[in-house]
Amino acid sequence: MAHVLVRSIVRPEKADAVLATLLDAGYPAVTKVSVFGRGKQRGLKVGDIHYDELPKELLMTVIPVDDKDFVVQRIMEAARTGSKGNFGDGKIFVSPVIEVYTVSTGKKED
Amino acid sequence: MAHVLVRSIVRPEKADAVLATLLDAGYPAVTKVSVFGRGKQRGLKVGDIHYDELPKELLMTVIPVDDKDFVVQRIMEAARTGSKGNFGDGKIFVSPVIEVYTVSTGKKED
Amino acid sequence: MAHVLVRSIVRPEKADAVLATLLDAGYPAVTKVSVFGRGKQRGLKVGDIHYDELPKELLMTVIPVDDKDFVVQRIMEAARTGSKGNFGDGKIFVSPVIEVYTVSTGKKED
Repeated sequence: MAHVLVRSIVRPEKADAVLATLLDAGYPAVTKVSVFGRGKQRGLKVGDIHYDELPKELLMTVIPVDDKDFVVQRIMEAARTGSKGNFGDGKIFVSPVIEVYTVSTGKKED
Repeated sequence: MAHVLVRSIVRPEKADAVLATLLDAGYPAVTKVSVFGRGKQRGLKVGDIHYDELPKELLMTVIPVDDKDFVVQRIMEAARTGSKGNFGDGKIFVSPVIEVYTVSTGKKED
Repeated sequence: MAHVLVRSIVRPEKADAVLATLLDAGYPAVTKVSVFGRGKQRGLKVGDIHYDELPKELLMTVIPVDDKDFVVQRIMEAARTGSKGNFGDGKIFVSPVIEVYTVSTGKKED
């Protein structure tokens, strides 16, 4: 396995910071989609209102497996709120990728 | 492999039932996104109109691998229509997850 | 591993061609979601305006592993622009799938 998929679920207000961090670190290629998420806190209570699910951004980037630890750390630093983090800052899931192709060239990447 | 990703593609009108089932069963953490799906039936014909793709909800939850069979069964029971099910009730795909991180703490989960 | 997930990120104007190709080739089942993507070109510059991310369509299809090379080639042919392709035509990622279930029947697929 040469590549892994790093799937980050982050607060919408932190998505730009994560994208900037990835670009700075040399990982420009990212796919982004708006999602709704519910975590271990089972939503959010604000006064009398309970929100079952909260908007999040899902960021997906495929990277060489050897860069995994570095990239995960950079994403977590960019996505964390405050100095100690808070519930709802998000999750990162790393999954295997078998093959990567570039459509324009038709080539499989090493 | 300690965790797997369970990806459920269900009817929009069944998404809340699946979310409630997962919460009751002790799996609150879910990510939800609205998608369009086409199945083996190649869309839907209603009178003269053919719908190529139909709206679905994609629910993603990462769980311990040992809980996989239980969680998949509960999702299928909640997502099925009628007593015998119908075409278009959806699919569930289980994929490997290598690592899981919590952004707030920076910790990798066992 | 009997199945793989083929995840294609393509230009929105090419999504219908890819869907038609997959249907013709005997792979009707596809899930589609609108996303934003940034590639190695880090967005697009048109005159004075820089677009950080561009709209793409993410198409997901789960297929038998033995059909992988054929399906990937057909998707690339349908998604490519011009005779030689262009930056931004997209990427295809192939990932492992452990299990596939059909909600209506409750059955696991071979």
